[in-house]
This record gives sequence, structure tokens and C-alpha cells, in this order.
Amino acid sequence: MNEYSSKLLETAVNELARLPGIGKKTALRLALFILREDNALAENLSRAIVRLRNEIVFCKRCNNIADSEVCDICGNHKRDENKICVVEDTRDVLAIENTAQYNGLYHVLGGIINPIEGIGPNDLFIGHLVQRINTESINEVILALPATVEGDTTNYYIFKLIKEFGITVSAIARGVAVGDELEYADEITLGRSILNRLPFENSMLRK
Amino acid sequence: MNEYSSKLLETAVNELARLPGIGKKTALRLALFILREDNALAENLSRAIVRLRNEIVFCKRCNNIADSEVCDICGNHKRDENKICVVEDTRDVLAIENTAQYNGLYHVLGGIINPIEGIGPNDLFIGHLVQRINTESINEVILALPATVEGDTTNYYIFKLIKEFGITVSAIARGVAVGDELEYADEITLGRSILNRLPFENSMLRK
Repeated sequence: MNEYSSKLLETAVNELARLPGIGKKTALRLALFILREDNALAENLSRAIVRLRNEIVFCKRCNNIADSEVCDICGNHKRDENKICVVEDTRDVLAIENTAQYNGLYHVLGGIINPIEGIGPNDLFIGHLVQRINTESINEVILALPATVEGDTTNYYIFKLIKEFGITVSAIARGVAVGDELEYADEITLGRSILNRLPFENSMLRK
Repeated sequence: MNEYSSKLLETAVNELARLPGIGKKTALRLALFILREDNALAENLSRAIVRLRNEIVFCKRCNNIADSEVCDICGNHKRDENKICVVEDTRDVLAIENTAQYNGLYHVLGGIINPIEGIGPNDLFIGHLVQRINTESINEVILALPATVEGDTTNYYIFKLIKEFGITVSAIARGVAVGDELEYADEITLGRSILNRLPFENSMLRK
């Protein structure tokens, strides 16, 4: 006997379980939910997935996900076109946009250097970044990659590549998170916070 | 500016976030995963979802999910056709089948009585259960509904409805889980375990 009493159910569970963070049990719960709900839910969901995969466009300037050749940020002339913030993927663009503290452009690498997973510099949009610095009037590149070994490696790789252009290369601050108690911060973060201390007037939250 | 930099991405995130236990952040992670992966993943997933919803069949005897009019369990003549185990949904059938301790038939109610969610007896396959007891040669009905207030209510409702048939109506045992320390069991469960104690010879795990 088939484990799931139905081949269709089994296929749906297996396909759902390919998604990250979704195991067989969760996949079964999702499949049974889809079965219980309106037909429309299944159809809208599957159409959205296929259209997303087939019709998505990446901005030819910053490589962010877009609906047209140039994304809304690159096409917005109110943004500061002299600054590029380098991020790993679209989620980071959303996160930084939500802070409302940055008004420059972005450059989405599409990943970070990770030898263990076989991702090298040529798999990322790093060459394209150098080209932008060459052709656009950039005066600052802000590295906003993850605070991990892979992020640091990628930061360093990019820094070496672009330092010759004589533009400012900065990296986002790392330190104790706002709202955190010092005793719960890990030692490396706390250590960096002390080393990279700021004049008090600059250290307060600005709106 | 659109929150997600792309209408297609926004639609996909919203549709994925309709699934239970998936919020906007997880939905975004899933959508970006689908974008990164092969075309085939998106296509197989969406086809599996639509086919599941449109082509699934419910066994006309036990109401379990099936690929044909009669499910594999009801169609298996090696099963004990005198026993019906009443469960809430397909997941419970899978869970009980995995124990390899039961060889009878099932009856899937498709839910349990839950006035708060507006689910009454008529929304469930309870009438169909009575009909089966009337027409099949059943000698025992095993109630295996959740150990919740709603489960108990449904158990009691069914019991009142079928006790006149003069067949055995039993309920699955509730008590301290195998492997659990007594001190961590809640009081009600432990209390039930004491009240429903068994002769020692019967209390050991049988294979």
C-alpha cells in the first residue's frame, strides 16, 4: 500500500517538501489544507508560482527582482545615484528599505562567496558591480553583506577589487543590537562594539 | 513603490502566505527559493497542487483520500471488516497505520464538532457512519478522535447515535505516553492513567 493512500497526495507532499524548511509532515498538513479549501486557492497558488518563475525580470542595472527592465529604485530619480549598497539578495533590499535610512541605489549579488557550496566570485554579479563603478558616477560603495565568515570573505574580495577606484568603501556597523542587554550579546559582537565606538552625539538613533 | 519590488513576487508571497503556518517572511523565503531553482521545480509543484485539488477522490466507503472509488484499505480483503476506527482526517489514518497495531477499517469524519468554528454534526460524515453500521457487518466501533474538548464532544455525539445498535463502542486509551516520566505528565492525563489502569499482563507493549 502507498504510504499516503493516494498517488496524487504523495506527489503533492513530495513536491511541497522540496521547499526549504518544509518537511514531510508539514507538507502533508499543507496538502490536506489545500484539499479542504476552495478550488481557487490551489489555482491561484499554482498560477502565482509558475508566473513568478517564468515571468520574473531582474533589473539590468542592480540585478534586483523587478517587473520591468529597470527596477523602481533604479528608475527613481529622487534617489542618490552616487551610492551603491551591495547586498546578498532581494530580502536585504526589502529590509534596508524598511528602515527608511538609506536613499541610494543597490547592487544585488545574488549570493555570497561560499566555497563549501561551490559558489565562487564568478557565480555572483561582482563583475557587473565593477562595471557600474566604472561607468556610473559612484562615490561610495556600502558593503551590507551578512556578518558571517562568507560575508566577510565576499566583502574583502570586493574591497580588493574596487579599492583602486579611489571611492569610499564602507561596511555597515556591527555591534550590540538596539534594545539588547549587554550581558546577552556574544563576546565577538560586544568586542567589536567597543572597538568601533562612536562619539556619543553620533551614537543615538536618528530619524 | 511596491513593497516587494515586483508585482509577481508580491502575488506569489501573498498566495504562499495563505497556507497554514506560513507567514509573509517564510513565504518570501519560499518564493526566492523557487526563483533560484530550476524551472522544473515550480512547474512540478504547481501541477501537483492543481491535480491534487482537482483530481482527488474520496473513498465512497470510508471517506479517506484515495485514487479510486474505493481506497486501498477498504479494498483489501485481508483487513478485518468487522471493525471501524473513527478518525478526524487522513493524517490520523496514516498515524495509526504506521503503528501496525490495527487491521480493521477506518471511517474518516473530515473534521470534528467545533461550534466556535461553526462545524456541526451535519458538516461531518457522521450520517454515513451510521449507514455503514446499518448495512455492513460491524461489531466494534473504535473512537480515535483527538483528546480535546471537541474530540470528546464528537465522541459522545457519535456514541449516543450508535449505542442502540448493540455493538461494542470503544475509545483509544489515554494516559502517560510511553517513554515519559510521570513527573512531567499533566495531572489530568496522569489521573486518567490511574483510573483506567490495566491488569499488568495487558499493560506491556505487544508487538
